[in-house]
Amino acid sequence: MRAVDLIRRKRDSGELTSEEIHELIASYTRGDIPDYQMSAWLMAVVLCGMSRPEIAALTEAMLHSGSVLDFSDLAGRKVDKHSTGGVGDKTSLIIAPIVAAGGLKVPMISGRGLGHSGGTLDKLESIPGFNVNLSLAEFRRVLKTCGCALIGQTAEIAPADKKMYALRDVTGTVESPALICASIMSKKLAEGIDALVLDVKTGSGAFMKKIEDAENLAELLVETGKRMGKKVVALLTDMNQPLGRTAGNAMEVAESIEVLSGGGPADLRELCLELAAWMFLVGERVKTVDEGKKLSSDLISSGQAREKFREIVGLQGGDVGIVDDPLRLAHAHETLDVTSPAGGYIAYIQCEQLGVACVVLGGGRERKQDQVDPAVGLVFHKRIGDAVERGEPLCTLHYNSHERVAEARQLAETAYRIEPERPKFSPSLIYRVIGT
Amino acid sequence: MRAVDLIRRKRDSGELTSEEIHELIASYTRGDIPDYQMSAWLMAVVLCGMSRPEIAALTEAMLHSGSVLDFSDLAGRKVDKHSTGGVGDKTSLIIAPIVAAGGLKVPMISGRGLGHSGGTLDKLESIPGFNVNLSLAEFRRVLKTCGCALIGQTAEIAPADKKMYALRDVTGTVESPALICASIMSKKLAEGIDALVLDVKTGSGAFMKKIEDAENLAELLVETGKRMGKKVVALLTDMNQPLGRTAGNAMEVAESIEVLSGGGPADLRELCLELAAWMFLVGERVKTVDEGKKLSSDLISSGQAREKFREIVGLQGGDVGIVDDPLRLAHAHETLDVTSPAGGYIAYIQCEQLGVACVVLGGGRERKQDQVDPAVGLVFHKRIGDAVERGEPLCTLHYNSHERVAEARQLAETAYRIEPERPKFSPSLIYRVIGT
Repeated sequence: MRAVDLIRRKRDSGELTSEEIHELIASYTRGDIPDYQMSAWLMAVVLCGMSRPEIAALTEAMLHSGSVLDFSDLAGRKVDKHSTGGVGDKTSLIIAPIVAAGGLKVPMISGRGLGHSGGTLDKLESIPGFNVNLSLAEFRRVLKTCGCALIGQTAEIAPADKKMYALRDVTGTVESPALICASIMSKKLAEGIDALVLDVKTGSGAFMKKIEDAENLAELLVETGKRMGKKVVALLTDMNQPLGRTAGNAMEVAESIEVLSGGGPADLRELCLELAAWMFLVGERVKTVDEGKKLSSDLISSGQAREKFREIVGLQGGDVGIVDDPLRLAHAHETLDVTSPAGGYIAYIQCEQLGVACVVLGGGRERKQDQVDPAVGLVFHKRIGDAVERGEPLCTLHYNSHERVAEARQLAETAYRIEPERPKFSPSLIYRVIGT
Repeated sequence: MRAVDLIRRKRDSGELTSEEIHELIASYTRGDIPDYQMSAWLMAVVLCGMSRPEIAALTEAMLHSGSVLDFSDLAGRKVDKHSTGGVGDKTSLIIAPIVAAGGLKVPMISGRGLGHSGGTLDKLESIPGFNVNLSLAEFRRVLKTCGCALIGQTAEIAPADKKMYALRDVTGTVESPALICASIMSKKLAEGIDALVLDVKTGSGAFMKKIEDAENLAELLVETGKRMGKKVVALLTDMNQPLGRTAGNAMEVAESIEVLSGGGPADLRELCLELAAWMFLVGERVKTVDEGKKLSSDLISSGQAREKFREIVGLQGGDVGIVDDPLRLAHAHETLDVTSPAGGYIAYIQCEQLGVACVVLGGGRERKQDQVDPAVGLVFHKRIGDAVERGEPLCTLHYNSHERVAEARQLAETAYRIEPERPKFSPSLIYRVIGT
């Protein structure tokens, strides 16, 4: 096999065999194929696409580039959830303890913030002491002890994806359904799970802005997971406005504890109940989604979900005191209201801009090496369809440094479109479920 | 400017500004942009194309990545010819001395064999002592002394092209009219010429198999040259069969001397007269192509062209004795006739295969570091439309090593299609002239 022949074939919209894809990925991971050949191939994939069998082969090749965890000796079905990312999406922190409290195992390997979207690991690290860098042995121990463990991608898990992802990020080859699918599924399937619930976001704050693109990706993900013998469903959910009331690492932890304590914003609570219900369903803990929602709701009201969260925090080295007293989490020193320039109704939110505003305040990274400030973020006061007075706050910036507040404010201010009439379009929370 | 943004824009079929292209090429040449980003951008160019202004900017950026020679202090117009490559194409060796003998200056920077096609430098190096690696000062001295000098690309000339070409070769990004155009024109325009004749080959032995592709490239080349203020014409010529009677470095030098001595195969002589005539025309030495052909023909019959060749060989350190006695050139030890399996007519020749057969015998390189054997090659006995008896030789392999003769023979044997009827299609030597 010559790498250049495989590049040329893909460039000419040809198909690669499963063996060729496996060899390509293995050689690249070993370092036998240089980055400049891989990036040319990746660009050809972005522009010419891949067939379903090619995507399955790529996923498998990336999956088997590293360790595939095996928790079959632990009792209970292993279930995970993955979101394609958005603004204010803190559902993992809420549903992982709910589902573990319901008796399933949740071995969750998460990511960091990417672009305008937040990351579960960054949120968890705003809990003082919380260690997301467990070894695989520690990961197993925590999972066995409390039914859930939350860590980051280790060197052993899908190293091909790690290497390819870094390359894609700097070569304009991120936006390919085939590559996104293989990247997500190779990591998730390495977790040793039986079933997976995917939360595929669409809208102005999602990576897939158009619903058809999100649908296409969701179908790909589900098909690829099923090919590998897993139970997989995908929920197509809204990201035309932030989920819940906050974006920012410590603030999102506090908001998650609110939901786990029976409160919290309605949209966030509702989506968490839905996602947890589907996890119970694919994990064969319940027979219907409604039964799953009821179970999830009960696990919250009984306090079991909150206790499970406390248990996880403790086992992973975090300060369990924050569960009862979220004020112990980091707080920003300054706040600034972003107010409405006119009276009327919120007609549209450029949600990605709100995510970028959070990054600008220091809540995310602009370069890989950047440090994240856990305290900063945004609190949202208005949702699409809400009435607003002139001068009323749309959102509040929480910040520690004056340096880039003006930029964040400008981003937040221009993210809202105010119109005199109440808008006809009001986004649903969940558009479709794929894979049932 | 972030490289990744330029990659993404091209990937989405957007246009880059002239400044962006200049910055991209300058940064890459300096080493500030890594190969893996450039190869992704190149693949996006191959698949999404470039606009005419983008191609012009790319050509200029690559041209100005190194020295642009200036021979304006030398009397006479400076003219060159460039061929897109084929099998048996030795016209440079013949027309450079003709045109220099006619009073124009020919500062010719040529290439080596590429894939199945031969290269002027490899041919010249089969003349014992001939030095194609002149410094730019020596290049100028030889050009000033005899009106012509024949060298290879130096480190000073279009270094961006040198670096990009090596990358394109291994990343499947050669086949783009935009990139081919910028590569050719950046090198040719660096020669300090006033005018250029392009020989764009099409057919089974050319890089552009389809006439429309060759036409498109020819138009691009002409337009780009004219944008830069040069007089440029392109001849669209046939490469459905080898040009002349031989392919192989020393044999092609001998055949060139034959033409310069007034003999040689009709097709080769005719194409050389045409190309030289056009060089005289764009070099403003004559008023019409016919006048140019007459002048070229006279320079051959008077012996002046042949004398000019001898002068060039001498000034570049070569053995001038080969001009009178081509037998002094290297000869292969063994020959093998490839015979016709049937009686009939030559209906079609897979000309590229004949070029590959020459490479397999050692007449070209399969890897960059390979040594070329000047002695080996093929002698062709039949052209399209010729009658052939069963068992009659189609061509003869000249070889030194038994190792790969079987492979070369097989390639040559299967390159000819014999049919019982005389074929209706017989290729013209020249299809069109573009740019007049």
